[in-house]
Amino acid sequence: MTAPNRATLWGRVIVDELVKGGLEAVCIAPGSRSTPLTVAFADHPEICVFSHLDERSASYFALGRARRTGEPTALVCTSGTAAANFHPAVMEADRARVPMLVLTADRPHELRDSGANQTVGQVGLYGDAVRWDAELPEPEADERTVRSLRTTAARALSETGGTDPGPVHLNCPFRKPLEPIEVPDAVPDSFSETLAGKGRDGAFVETNSGSMTLDDGQYRPLVRALEDADRPLIVAGPADPVDLTELDSGAVVTVAERIGAPILADPLSNLRFGPHVSDTDASDGPVYGGYDGYISDLPSPDVVVRFGASPTSKPLRHALRDSGSRQFLLDPAGAWREATFTATDLLAASPGSVFEGLCERLESESDDGDNGATPAANDEWVARFAAAERRHWDIRDDALTEDALETDPFEGSVLASVFAHAPDPATVFVSNSMPIRDADRFGRPRAADLTVLANRGASGIDGIASTALGAGSTTDDPLVLVTGDLAFYHDSNGLLAVERCGVDATIVLLDNDGGGIFHKLPIEEFEPPFTDQFKTPHGLEFETVAELYGLEFERVGPAEFVDAYRGSLEREGTQVLALEFDSEASHRRREGLEERIRDEVRRESE
Amino acid sequence: MTAPNRATLWGRVIVDELVKGGLEAVCIAPGSRSTPLTVAFADHPEICVFSHLDERSASYFALGRARRTGEPTALVCTSGTAAANFHPAVMEADRARVPMLVLTADRPHELRDSGANQTVGQVGLYGDAVRWDAELPEPEADERTVRSLRTTAARALSETGGTDPGPVHLNCPFRKPLEPIEVPDAVPDSFSETLAGKGRDGAFVETNSGSMTLDDGQYRPLVRALEDADRPLIVAGPADPVDLTELDSGAVVTVAERIGAPILADPLSNLRFGPHVSDTDASDGPVYGGYDGYISDLPSPDVVVRFGASPTSKPLRHALRDSGSRQFLLDPAGAWREATFTATDLLAASPGSVFEGLCERLESESDDGDNGATPAANDEWVARFAAAERRHWDIRDDALTEDALETDPFEGSVLASVFAHAPDPATVFVSNSMPIRDADRFGRPRAADLTVLANRGASGIDGIASTALGAGSTTDDPLVLVTGDLAFYHDSNGLLAVERCGVDATIVLLDNDGGGIFHKLPIEEFEPPFTDQFKTPHGLEFETVAELYGLEFERVGPAEFVDAYRGSLEREGTQVLALEFDSEASHRRREGLEERIRDEVRRESE
Repeated sequence: MTAPNRATLWGRVIVDELVKGGLEAVCIAPGSRSTPLTVAFADHPEICVFSHLDERSASYFALGRARRTGEPTALVCTSGTAAANFHPAVMEADRARVPMLVLTADRPHELRDSGANQTVGQVGLYGDAVRWDAELPEPEADERTVRSLRTTAARALSETGGTDPGPVHLNCPFRKPLEPIEVPDAVPDSFSETLAGKGRDGAFVETNSGSMTLDDGQYRPLVRALEDADRPLIVAGPADPVDLTELDSGAVVTVAERIGAPILADPLSNLRFGPHVSDTDASDGPVYGGYDGYISDLPSPDVVVRFGASPTSKPLRHALRDSGSRQFLLDPAGAWREATFTATDLLAASPGSVFEGLCERLESESDDGDNGATPAANDEWVARFAAAERRHWDIRDDALTEDALETDPFEGSVLASVFAHAPDPATVFVSNSMPIRDADRFGRPRAADLTVLANRGASGIDGIASTALGAGSTTDDPLVLVTGDLAFYHDSNGLLAVERCGVDATIVLLDNDGGGIFHKLPIEEFEPPFTDQFKTPHGLEFETVAELYGLEFERVGPAEFVDAYRGSLEREGTQVLALEFDSEASHRRREGLEERIRDEVRRESE
Repeated sequence: MTAPNRATLWGRVIVDELVKGGLEAVCIAPGSRSTPLTVAFADHPEICVFSHLDERSASYFALGRARRTGEPTALVCTSGTAAANFHPAVMEADRARVPMLVLTADRPHELRDSGANQTVGQVGLYGDAVRWDAELPEPEADERTVRSLRTTAARALSETGGTDPGPVHLNCPFRKPLEPIEVPDAVPDSFSETLAGKGRDGAFVETNSGSMTLDDGQYRPLVRALEDADRPLIVAGPADPVDLTELDSGAVVTVAERIGAPILADPLSNLRFGPHVSDTDASDGPVYGGYDGYISDLPSPDVVVRFGASPTSKPLRHALRDSGSRQFLLDPAGAWREATFTATDLLAASPGSVFEGLCERLESESDDGDNGATPAANDEWVARFAAAERRHWDIRDDALTEDALETDPFEGSVLASVFAHAPDPATVFVSNSMPIRDADRFGRPRAADLTVLANRGASGIDGIASTALGAGSTTDDPLVLVTGDLAFYHDSNGLLAVERCGVDATIVLLDNDGGGIFHKLPIEEFEPPFTDQFKTPHGLEFETVAELYGLEFERVGPAEFVDAYRGSLEREGTQVLALEFDSEASHRRREGLEERIRDEVRRESE
């Protein structure tokens, strides 16, 4: 490694080590202080560089990409408020276990708190939202210091992963010249011959992180409980990014079938959709998706195996809380993600490994043939779920006929169609607030390979477009984004990535002119301030946003949506399909449907 | 104070105390967890409530308002990433001494780090960027707890001010119900009769904060140095918000005239424009504004009095650094805002009080008549500045003729006209990057009452539109915003405040399609990555942004700008005046002008 000056040397060494450590992509916002990093990244043939003009959008794009791949994306910004613009996405990455490496450029130490321009306190900027943070020393062409730099780069990348992936922050002070300008004697020629200067053929420190697995003794209580269960349940919450690749859905299905347990699959669990789902009639199980509508009217489970984050469905969370069941939480980091505080057993191990282990252990034990808890014993239990599930989707389908949609349009119909007609494979990104709730209620399990993602770590409506486009940037699968109007407005800047980063999408915009979710809450009854401070209608015409970013824009009615959606998915380019809804009417329609489902399930249960 | 439940009680008590303590405005982003605060603010007849849909824009709007008034603005958001979206503006408020009170709603304690939805670590979120932060206990209708709540509200407001104003953060956990729903026995009737329940007629704790003043002994070295000086200089950097009202420009002028010192007035110093400036020919001094062009070619000062933040002009900063002069820094908080590290004396006292004290002391001492250092002794020194200043503006004026602008258009001409033709009074907000630098070079001192503002604390280009509109929200003076295209893009969301918050502006958009400032830096020579990663042309057509937010949009050439600008200032509503420039050509033109000014000043000096 040679370099015309120390800042350039450091930029090159950092990028060299990160790429050797496996980093594949970086999002960069323009700035001067970060020049050594930017130049080194741009100059490296093996890294994908995405340039963004709004740091907040940049960070969510990086988040989306890493959420889709499970691999870290790096972020680079200059000194000052730029770094604070990353903070919301860093928080989401923390809560959602998304690997992310934040590199903030900084001024040299003596300029901190000196009144110097564009200089703020950047050390420890993200508080405890990062897994690790460090400040680099100032660039030197010194053997030990550069060895430490290579080691720190390897470590930073490694700390984004492991059992509890998340964001890592390196603050990087640089001194002028920042550009690759020759400074005599700054980097001696001999330096390139040192270990620090040369680095190694591969990473300076090859890093391998083991995973948490249970031993036989630790499996035993779980196996026994499942075998003895009369009403076992598997609850798959929103998947951690690593589970998108590491969790074998086949193993979960095998376990479910052996013990006679329904799998309640959150739309974000990566289990509601996929080849493991029965294609002809999803209501046959073992994967169920309609439980939000009926779980509170079925008998309580006695043993529950839970993994992933907290389920989107509030009725499901409450049913688990009130069940009095034995609840096993599987968590790869041993975290306590169960906010109703009724879990009874925490198994700190990766869900993927536990289900594989269960496949072996349940098989060998039931082979003995002398265990009473055969699946057959739970037939009635499973049948209750299957019947309720069927009823749920039948009633939903009634509400989705063209006639029904013309007289009673409602937002849920769009989410139903988004999943039913998504191409196989596809990535579907769903915004927070109402879209994810409607995805949960109306997204019917399918055998298609749909990767469904959302920002459910901190559940903000900021950065939605950018996260979706970041997820889409890493795959050739078609990308669908479903968003409400407030989220669309919030991160419309992120749409610049369509052209700048070359990502195409079908954007389904549910425009109910404000915060429709507040109709679900008691504040609806208090007017004022309901309309002005909560619903906040804005009257924005988003066609102009599409025009600004060169996107096609099409207004469609609910009954025409499926055709428009299919059409968009067949076309190149990015289309915004905008549907206007009255959020209050939509909400009343949702309530009516929920009531009908519950009534029928309850009647059948009697 | 009565309330149907505890959360409502707390919302009401907090707002009651803040309003009694003098809070006049709050910016609220919609959310559920913050309902008790939102409802109480919306319900209070004496507070101005601004509703914003993007928290980042909300926080910059609050910043802008407080920057203009010197009085705190409150901010309210729900739990989760919303609070992190405030971080950039909190940073700017910290560095720029802008009072700001951030109220973040949070979930109850037991839900923290439990996997609960929309729950992140909010305590201490802004690190050391806040003057004070505290977490409220959970709402109780308990005498002592509510007395502590009233006290904390008074304290929080007070901590935004004092000698070093800035942001304060209160994290506010709330438990359902969040709406004003009756909960039997939650707040006993008798509670409203207690001191905690009733509060007082005025603030619960009337708070008065003294200011830093010097005693006679502390004045003496300064007075003596100024009287003995042969080449004294007064350097007014960007003003702290409090100085917009507390610094008497007349006193600064009096001191300058008595000691024979030019006042080098940063465009943000609140001294470059105002009735204290000679109207017929600003080059007569004592206020000078063209120094960026000539300071490095004049003799060095021997005694300097500096106040405000670090000057925008780099030639001025370097001239001070290289002067070998005695440099007195006046700082109301005793902060060390001098990043060249050549200051010799720090006076921890408010600049306003020091200049008033100097008026008294210099007067009485020179009345004695036996001091050799009369102003006349410095006539030649002052004359050098006057001549250079005259030369600077003459050359600038040459470059501003209609003919010159048609053959050699450049961005600086727009800034020159913005100040020359701004109405009196007016608020002019100038974006960072090139506009503030051109304002410094080409904004000629005027007798008009122009309040010139910028985000020079951390010098970001984020939140510019919102800050400007926030500043405009507090005055009937016409509002002018000068912004580049990247800043305009970055905070286009903030333009929603034009309609929602009822603020009109004339927005001057200097569109050079990317980061023109990078042409000033050595990176210009490195292609790639100069264009893709630094200049970042985007090709956005901002007419659609204006359409989205209902603003008039007019494309104007540099030679037609003055007419269009005057026309906009005479009309109601908000107009975007868009000027397209080639940033490279503009930069070369700037360099040419600078060279000509320096050549002529140098020749005259010989």
